[in-house]
Amino acid sequence: MFEAVISLALSRPLVLGSRSPRRIQLLEELGISFRRAVSQVDETQHPGEDPYTCAVRLAGEKAADVAAHSSHGELVIGGDTIVVLGGAILGKPTDRSHAIETLQTLSGKRHTVCTALALADHTRVLCSGEERTEVFFRPVTRVQIEAYVDGGEPMDKAGAYGIQGMGAFLVDRIEGNLDNVVGLPRTLLDSLARDVLHLL
Amino acid sequence: MFEAVISLALSRPLVLGSRSPRRIQLLEELGISFRRAVSQVDETQHPGEDPYTCAVRLAGEKAADVAAHSSHGELVIGGDTIVVLGGAILGKPTDRSHAIETLQTLSGKRHTVCTALALADHTRVLCSGEERTEVFFRPVTRVQIEAYVDGGEPMDKAGAYGIQGMGAFLVDRIEGNLDNVVGLPRTLLDSLARDVLHLL
Repeated sequence: MFEAVISLALSRPLVLGSRSPRRIQLLEELGISFRRAVSQVDETQHPGEDPYTCAVRLAGEKAADVAAHSSHGELVIGGDTIVVLGGAILGKPTDRSHAIETLQTLSGKRHTVCTALALADHTRVLCSGEERTEVFFRPVTRVQIEAYVDGGEPMDKAGAYGIQGMGAFLVDRIEGNLDNVVGLPRTLLDSLARDVLHLL
Repeated sequence: MFEAVISLALSRPLVLGSRSPRRIQLLEELGISFRRAVSQVDETQHPGEDPYTCAVRLAGEKAADVAAHSSHGELVIGGDTIVVLGGAILGKPTDRSHAIETLQTLSGKRHTVCTALALADHTRVLCSGEERTEVFFRPVTRVQIEAYVDGGEPMDKAGAYGIQGMGAFLVDRIEGNLDNVVGLPRTLLDSLARDVLHLL
């Protein structure tokens, strides 16, 4: 399982372009070695750009940015997770009231979580893709939302919640890949790794 | 969020009747204190017993067993997770070939994961319930299954897989509550805790 990622890790040094503890944990579970690095990318959606196209573009830009500062031969995994409601990206909250507003918007509704991944070396983005999962929020009260926001979890997260951790109280059900919701769709990563192995 | 569980933990000492690291982690995330204990219960399904009825009964028996050895005033959380295919429970594998057979049976199909929970004090089971999630396995090869089984993860697990960890490669998608698949449906626990608070 995850044979391609494991083969890739054996043939090239891997770099995970993310500081997300969940992403790190999912990759560590594969028993491979990798180093971590953080990208510096402007995460703004282009005017008129489709949300999923934007996520794939940002994953590629993040991977390329880290790869530009990497050693020759290293392969970089870049990722971008977005929360989409009614065709629009709900970004990371800018402050407390924005986080409350975002969660009130999601309450009682279904939205899409998309994680895009890209693999890059120091010359270019080699391949990329995205995976989507549907998430159904239960109806929650303003008091519950405020307590959750004041707990600090929402502030650095797309859609102002973390599905693992205390944010689980918001979620009635999900439909889709589990890793994807946690933040690193490993079957997508494996399929991208298979493509890259053919390129090397 | 999870207000009832948190209130209950403040009013009574809680005991988690499980040694599952994932269950422990999900409960720890609520920021409550609890001790752990292990139950000694015969996990055999009764002849003709419905799988979900069986899971609820076993969760109750586990909670009651731990509660019988607990201090006065302690409240015990018991849990039982089953994997159901075609109306039958697929149990924990007895050996390597049983694990391989179970995973071959699940390959390419949809099954149900059910976690039942019960709360008990030293006198009786106070309340119980169950939550179900649909899990869709991708088609996997015998070679992949053998590699996974030889990695050691399947041996103590219902249905011979862990959805977190390396077992994620088996799962195409899930439909249902996320905590439930991990092994501790916290929204169900919260609803049971609310019932118990009314009884106390």
